[in-house]
Amino acid sequence: MAAWGERLAGVRGVLLDISGVLYDGGEGGGAPIPGSVEALARLKRSQLKVRFCTNESQKSRGDLVGMLRRLGFDISEGEVTAPAPATCLILKERGLRPHLLIHDGVRSEFDQIDTSNPNCVVIADAGDGFSYQNMNKAFQVLMELENPVLFSLGKGRYYKETSGLMLDVGPYTKALEYACGIEAEVVGKPSPEFFKSALREMRVEAHQAIMIGDDIVGDVSGAQRCGMRALQVRTGKFRPSDEHHPEVKADGYVDNLAEAVDLLLQHADK
Amino acid sequence: MAAWGERLAGVRGVLLDISGVLYDGGEGGGAPIPGSVEALARLKRSQLKVRFCTNESQKSRGDLVGMLRRLGFDISEGEVTAPAPATCLILKERGLRPHLLIHDGVRSEFDQIDTSNPNCVVIADAGDGFSYQNMNKAFQVLMELENPVLFSLGKGRYYKETSGLMLDVGPYTKALEYACGIEAEVVGKPSPEFFKSALREMRVEAHQAIMIGDDIVGDVSGAQRCGMRALQVRTGKFRPSDEHHPEVKADGYVDNLAEAVDLLLQHADK
Repeated sequence: MAAWGERLAGVRGVLLDISGVLYDGGEGGGAPIPGSVEALARLKRSQLKVRFCTNESQKSRGDLVGMLRRLGFDISEGEVTAPAPATCLILKERGLRPHLLIHDGVRSEFDQIDTSNPNCVVIADAGDGFSYQNMNKAFQVLMELENPVLFSLGKGRYYKETSGLMLDVGPYTKALEYACGIEAEVVGKPSPEFFKSALREMRVEAHQAIMIGDDIVGDVSGAQRCGMRALQVRTGKFRPSDEHHPEVKADGYVDNLAEAVDLLLQHADK
Repeated sequence: MAAWGERLAGVRGVLLDISGVLYDGGEGGGAPIPGSVEALARLKRSQLKVRFCTNESQKSRGDLVGMLRRLGFDISEGEVTAPAPATCLILKERGLRPHLLIHDGVRSEFDQIDTSNPNCVVIADAGDGFSYQNMNKAFQVLMELENPVLFSLGKGRYYKETSGLMLDVGPYTKALEYACGIEAEVVGKPSPEFFKSALREMRVEAHQAIMIGDDIVGDVSGAQRCGMRALQVRTGKFRPSDEHHPEVKADGYVDNLAEAVDLLLQHADK
């Protein structure tokens, strides 16, 4: 593999995944990944542009940022690209009224959305809200539509909490897709539109941007398919087999955000 | 389409699906489909061999048969091919100890199975048992195995209860497959092994047998791929679009079991 100097040359903007990179979620709000608070502070003091690109769909952007600030992270709401606000824009543009299969924690994002007489379904990481009853209700709404439309906020397979691996929204989206014989529209990583909106908001071109994430598919492959570079951190949901993934090769593997920031500050934009 | 006489010539054995053909499940045990009790009685008085081939995995075979007998059906346990007993045989043959993601109603079928220190997962139609917690537990068991093995009792998309369409095991199997990056082994329709075991038990060759079911994929396509003929009834989960399925064409579509039996008694084995 090329030297870091070559791999990171010309990087001007950094997109950061949140869960598994900054912190691990869990009971009581979760815990920062060691070194990440300081690493983010150093990165933000540098000349590199920084933006957060998350598939978090259990919490509103406000609650997510509030929680991260309490953990010590320097982050504000306007710096975060997240799927719930992006979905609301799409719903408004297309005049759609969703049935919401979502966590109560993110419901406030949809306050301005008409949910009467639904003509589509929005599925997000509902956690314990993924009861049989709630899944069946979403299924029945879709089956009653002539042209069933399903929006999935990300398609992650699982994420890591302090207590262990947890099913993410992706498996439940697959369940509804199979049950109804349809394909969901993904709003979130690895959808190219989602990465592109984060790049627009950061005002950096894809070839000058690098994604840092713990998900070899959602973060690394997704960003690379948009023309960005991508590093995988060995924290969060990282598994050693990711480094031998049959289809995806990151531009680099680093132990954690702290190592990524060390390398970026040393080699980027040279 | 050829005349019924031609389509049913040489049929000597009839495999009957249960849910959606004999009865619709639901609160209080469900209700017989009009005409099906009498149709089954007539069929059993004929010279045709009859066997039941079900993907029912919420109830034990004993409970299922008891319920059907109370609804008036002439059926005994030994006449039913069902996935839970078939799965137990496989588990014993391969020395596997399952984690069970199943409905309490079918748990007794697994009484003789060692479930300590599990090295595989069995998923059946768990109904309300498909909570996030239970799905996550099954997921975690699979992720901890070096070679994760998942048995799915059928892969039906949904079934019809008196209150409406209900998600079956298939969508939840797809969820675990996607989450773990694996493929389940299906025990039940449309697995060819399952149809073949029903044929063996009926002692009829595939080309002399006909399947009657309400599922265009699980029943009709599955049986045809085993060399059997298959009729779809317009009861249960049947939807008008099934008659224009892009890949599957039944050997005939009939309003209900009563019409199927009328035609069989008139034309079969000629």
